[in-house]
Amino acid sequence: MATHDTNMRLKFPILAIALEILIIILYALFVVYDDGSPEHGHSSSSNHTEQNNVSLYPMFQDVHVMIFIGFGFLMTFLKRYSFSSVGFNLLLAGFGLQWGLLMQGIWHGVPIKVNISRMINADFSTATVLISFGAVLGKTSPVQLLIMTILEITTFAINEYVVVDIFEARDVGASMTIHAFGAYFGLSAARMLYRPGLRNGHEKEGSVYHSDVFAMIGTVFLWMFWPSFNSAIADPGKAQLTAITNTYFSLAACVLTAYAISSLVDHRGKLDMVHIQNATLAGGVAVGTCADMNIEPFGAMIIGSLAGIISTLGFKFLSPILASTLGIQDTCGVHNLHGMPGILGGVAGIVAVALGKANGSASYQLAALGSSLGFAVVGGAITGFLMRLPLWGQPPDQNCFDDAIYWEVPEEEEENEECLAHDHSKNKAEA
Amino acid sequence: MATHDTNMRLKFPILAIALEILIIILYALFVVYDDGSPEHGHSSSSNHTEQNNVSLYPMFQDVHVMIFIGFGFLMTFLKRYSFSSVGFNLLLAGFGLQWGLLMQGIWHGVPIKVNISRMINADFSTATVLISFGAVLGKTSPVQLLIMTILEITTFAINEYVVVDIFEARDVGASMTIHAFGAYFGLSAARMLYRPGLRNGHEKEGSVYHSDVFAMIGTVFLWMFWPSFNSAIADPGKAQLTAITNTYFSLAACVLTAYAISSLVDHRGKLDMVHIQNATLAGGVAVGTCADMNIEPFGAMIIGSLAGIISTLGFKFLSPILASTLGIQDTCGVHNLHGMPGILGGVAGIVAVALGKANGSASYQLAALGSSLGFAVVGGAITGFLMRLPLWGQPPDQNCFDDAIYWEVPEEEEENEECLAHDHSKNKAEA
Amino acid sequence: MATHDTNMRLKFPILAIALEILIIILYALFVVYDDGSPEHGHSSSSNHTEQNNVSLYPMFQDVHVMIFIGFGFLMTFLKRYSFSSVGFNLLLAGFGLQWGLLMQGIWHGVPIKVNISRMINADFSTATVLISFGAVLGKTSPVQLLIMTILEITTFAINEYVVVDIFEARDVGASMTIHAFGAYFGLSAARMLYRPGLRNGHEKEGSVYHSDVFAMIGTVFLWMFWPSFNSAIADPGKAQLTAITNTYFSLAACVLTAYAISSLVDHRGKLDMVHIQNATLAGGVAVGTCADMNIEPFGAMIIGSLAGIISTLGFKFLSPILASTLGIQDTCGVHNLHGMPGILGGVAGIVAVALGKANGSASYQLAALGSSLGFAVVGGAITGFLMRLPLWGQPPDQNCFDDAIYWEVPEEEEENEECLAHDHSKNKAEA
Repeated sequence: MATHDTNMRLKFPILAIALEILIIILYALFVVYDDGSPEHGHSSSSNHTEQNNVSLYPMFQDVHVMIFIGFGFLMTFLKRYSFSSVGFNLLLAGFGLQWGLLMQGIWHGVPIKVNISRMINADFSTATVLISFGAVLGKTSPVQLLIMTILEITTFAINEYVVVDIFEARDVGASMTIHAFGAYFGLSAARMLYRPGLRNGHEKEGSVYHSDVFAMIGTVFLWMFWPSFNSAIADPGKAQLTAITNTYFSLAACVLTAYAISSLVDHRGKLDMVHIQNATLAGGVAVGTCADMNIEPFGAMIIGSLAGIISTLGFKFLSPILASTLGIQDTCGVHNLHGMPGILGGVAGIVAVALGKANGSASYQLAALGSSLGFAVVGGAITGFLMRLPLWGQPPDQNCFDDAIYWEVPEEEEENEECLAHDHSKNKAEA
Repeated sequence: MATHDTNMRLKFPILAIALEILIIILYALFVVYDDGSPEHGHSSSSNHTEQNNVSLYPMFQDVHVMIFIGFGFLMTFLKRYSFSSVGFNLLLAGFGLQWGLLMQGIWHGVPIKVNISRMINADFSTATVLISFGAVLGKTSPVQLLIMTILEITTFAINEYVVVDIFEARDVGASMTIHAFGAYFGLSAARMLYRPGLRNGHEKEGSVYHSDVFAMIGTVFLWMFWPSFNSAIADPGKAQLTAITNTYFSLAACVLTAYAISSLVDHRGKLDMVHIQNATLAGGVAVGTCADMNIEPFGAMIIGSLAGIISTLGFKFLSPILASTLGIQDTCGVHNLHGMPGILGGVAGIVAVALGKANGSASYQLAALGSSLGFAVVGGAITGFLMRLPLWGQPPDQNCFDDAIYWEVPEEEEENEECLAHDHSKNKAEA
Repeated sequence: MATHDTNMRLKFPILAIALEILIIILYALFVVYDDGSPEHGHSSSSNHTEQNNVSLYPMFQDVHVMIFIGFGFLMTFLKRYSFSSVGFNLLLAGFGLQWGLLMQGIWHGVPIKVNISRMINADFSTATVLISFGAVLGKTSPVQLLIMTILEITTFAINEYVVVDIFEARDVGASMTIHAFGAYFGLSAARMLYRPGLRNGHEKEGSVYHSDVFAMIGTVFLWMFWPSFNSAIADPGKAQLTAITNTYFSLAACVLTAYAISSLVDHRGKLDMVHIQNATLAGGVAVGTCADMNIEPFGAMIIGSLAGIISTLGFKFLSPILASTLGIQDTCGVHNLHGMPGILGGVAGIVAVALGKANGSASYQLAALGSSLGFAVVGGAITGFLMRLPLWGQPPDQNCFDDAIYWEVPEEEEENEECLAHDHSKNKAEA
């Protein structure tokens, strides 16, 4: 296979090493263990004792699994991009958590004290990047993706400060600050990286049977551990239990509607793996802002049901329009899984606060949603513009969705070699 | 591929949506958050404080993984039914946990208070359905399966009430109430759905290399987390630790005997993936009833060893006989993994109680086993009879074990396309 | 396929059954539940109350996942040895944990009291075997592997006693006692089992696309849960939190350097899946000894960065030399993942203690490293010599790396059958 001259020969390793050296210097200067003494300023973890921080560890690990297995395998659905999906996911999240802990901590004064809460938040910050990665999957080089990681996590930390510390808005499961933010950041970047040459698709932009099964590993781990995602930073006790319960029910309800609509919109009634892999998760996204509010189990189910419907309809009808009319080529359909359900979550939060289901201000909730969308669209556009600079080695259209440009890829399946060999030998015999 | 006119076009989506609407109405009427105040009547969770309920969360998540990854992937072994295995597993469990929480809670008065214990029990209730799903795997439509879910969980909740609240029998790991019940319910239904046309097998009723590896994901997650399954609802403290310990050792011992017998019964000594995927788990099933009893580690190992032997022999010798003489076509061999080991577990419980290893009544233990088998066989037969009604879109024999009847299935592997294309082009050249 | 006459017909099942019977007898004599009363002599768990032991359960499960999913799937990368990789992994670990609990417990007096700490340590003891299994993967029969398990765990328990109880050395994450020990034990055994006939490789000693994706399941689960491995037996509280934190950062830093070096050493800059699957984990190995010491987050990152570099360079440059000049055929490259990073970890521990980052003696740390390497090399050589005895059914060269010698393997992928069938039918037509 003819391989394009990418940025992998020197730029990628030099950038990766340089970033790690930078990180080590910054950590040597600014990051210490949490010794349990009070921190300067506001900190969501200041009311945890050291023991409590260890008690959060199982929740941290659930979130960790979502980030590394969940997002990583969810994107393995492409027939020849599974190495990049799970591999770059590991790279970006491994770098992103180091960067995110710095960016999020810096607002609360130095030295930054590391504890389990901070590690959960660092994992959260990488989630925004992994969502955006889904929008540009298959069309961006590792160098471009590392640049996106730096810029997106920095922007995320600013927006999070605005939403949490200035507006004091509620968003325990981060429908707005992670999901809507990550989706529209990625879509905005994808718009800047529009490829007319892929208007009519690409032969490798599709799945094979077993790549779809790999993707279900990601789906199911995300689905199972989403209650941990939405409750990990909730106040201990009743609020945390409420967040677990609401997310559990929202996801369960979402499954039913996602399956129903997936079948309903196909003219033969067949289910579509793309919908099942993604839209079954929309309930977790959409209940995020309200997760720790007293919306009652049936309220969570209504939110989850709507999310499953909106998300599946988005995959079927909206994504093709976004691509053809707006030039937004959204590989994984993050608009349907994170974008619209994230906005639904933000709106549900406004309604719930307005109805008195929780303390808070409906107008500040609205401001938080606006801030998240604004930072996402502007930040994503600037980031996408910078990613377009030719020196980052963006792959040409014909090498998109193909691991072979970045990875040593093993020879084809043995059986098939035999098959071809058989064929070839016969060709010779006939010649 | 010519596709049969199934029930997927309208009946499936309408049923799924209608069920979710019904669920939401029932939850709005009857289900609230647990506020920690005492409940009416008997409840296994009434001695937990709110904090304790959150402390059960890691165990809940282990059980959750068993239900959604464990059962889901264990059934992906079929070469062309992996989408349905993991996908319908998600659908049935997602619906089943909502239905199960209602059915199990209704006995202890309304409003039903949701907490982690209840969520664990709701997950448990879905396990019965997923076991039965294994018996009819590949031969039933989603509409049939949703009907089975409703009826089986309802029957399960009645039997559980009889066993736990009336007989006050011990069954902490649910050898009787989940495993034996789920297996014989499914086998009874499978008998009603007997297909003479599949007497000589079906070309798609088998595995390919990588589908067997996918199935091992299910096996290993079930194997690892089974100590959580058997201890999740045990009394906190010593009983819970005993249940963990006994299950850990029973499973370890079971591995040795399952491997040994799998090799021994093959005339060349080769291991059979079907045995390894399933019989290594029989130790978890069989130690369930005794898990929190003082049977000592070596006692648990004896139970596990026997379970591994019985289960492997069942796969090798009994399943073919059940199919040929009784007309019970048990796709996953649930009789060998859940049926016989579940009965072994019930009998071990009778013996252990009779020997004074735990408080309880041997005769009530026997009654509990009888009740579980009775409800299973009768309930499964009635359910199977109802599932046979033509309006549920049961697939014709030739479409069994094939995702393509319910799912959009991607085109074949690229390499192979090339192979076929190569072939075809050559055909043309020759023509 | 012509199959060689292996030891699977009778020797394997008889050995497996005999071992389980022996284990049951020994457990009946020597193993009881932990009733919370003080034990004779020194025990790391004696300061845990019963409640605390249950509180370790989530960490135990993380370690459990690393042993059974992590190691098992990491080795599925070979194109036709995935059944054996995940299957024998389950067999060896299932037997090994039973044997390890006895061997480790015997030093602290009988009866041995089982609790979660002991179960974690038993899982740890199996890790040594699974590391060594990686060195001889594809070239050893199950009977050989069971013999290795018995001898290696016994040697491990002796060395652990020397390191922990005599030298009182620190090795909380077991860089020396598990990783370096397991690697050099396996390499020493592999040297004894040298196969000249595989000097030029073997057609089946390689991956296919999806087997590499399966292996990433193992990699990512190992990567995520390594903080649990390194902190599970740390002192509760601050030391445990430090071990979690250091391991988290070491692994994150290691990812960046492993990716950078993997790309840098390829003449086209392409990433190699072998490096990504393995070298990204070296940071967890190398930070093991220092994990609970006050090395600060940036110190952990330096260790992790170095480990990623050393490990990747080892795969690229050292492994081929070891094979060609020393006759050490290391299938999985355990020298690069566990050997060198394990020594790095031991050396880092010496330096850290010398610098006063933790209590302890630098010379005893050095003695512990020497002891671990010494027991490994000598124990591995003796074990390898015994494994060579002809009666254990070592597979002939041509059957190496092939499941078909031990397993019923399903027919080839359906598509391909069609492809071949197509071909064959055409052959007939042409004939």
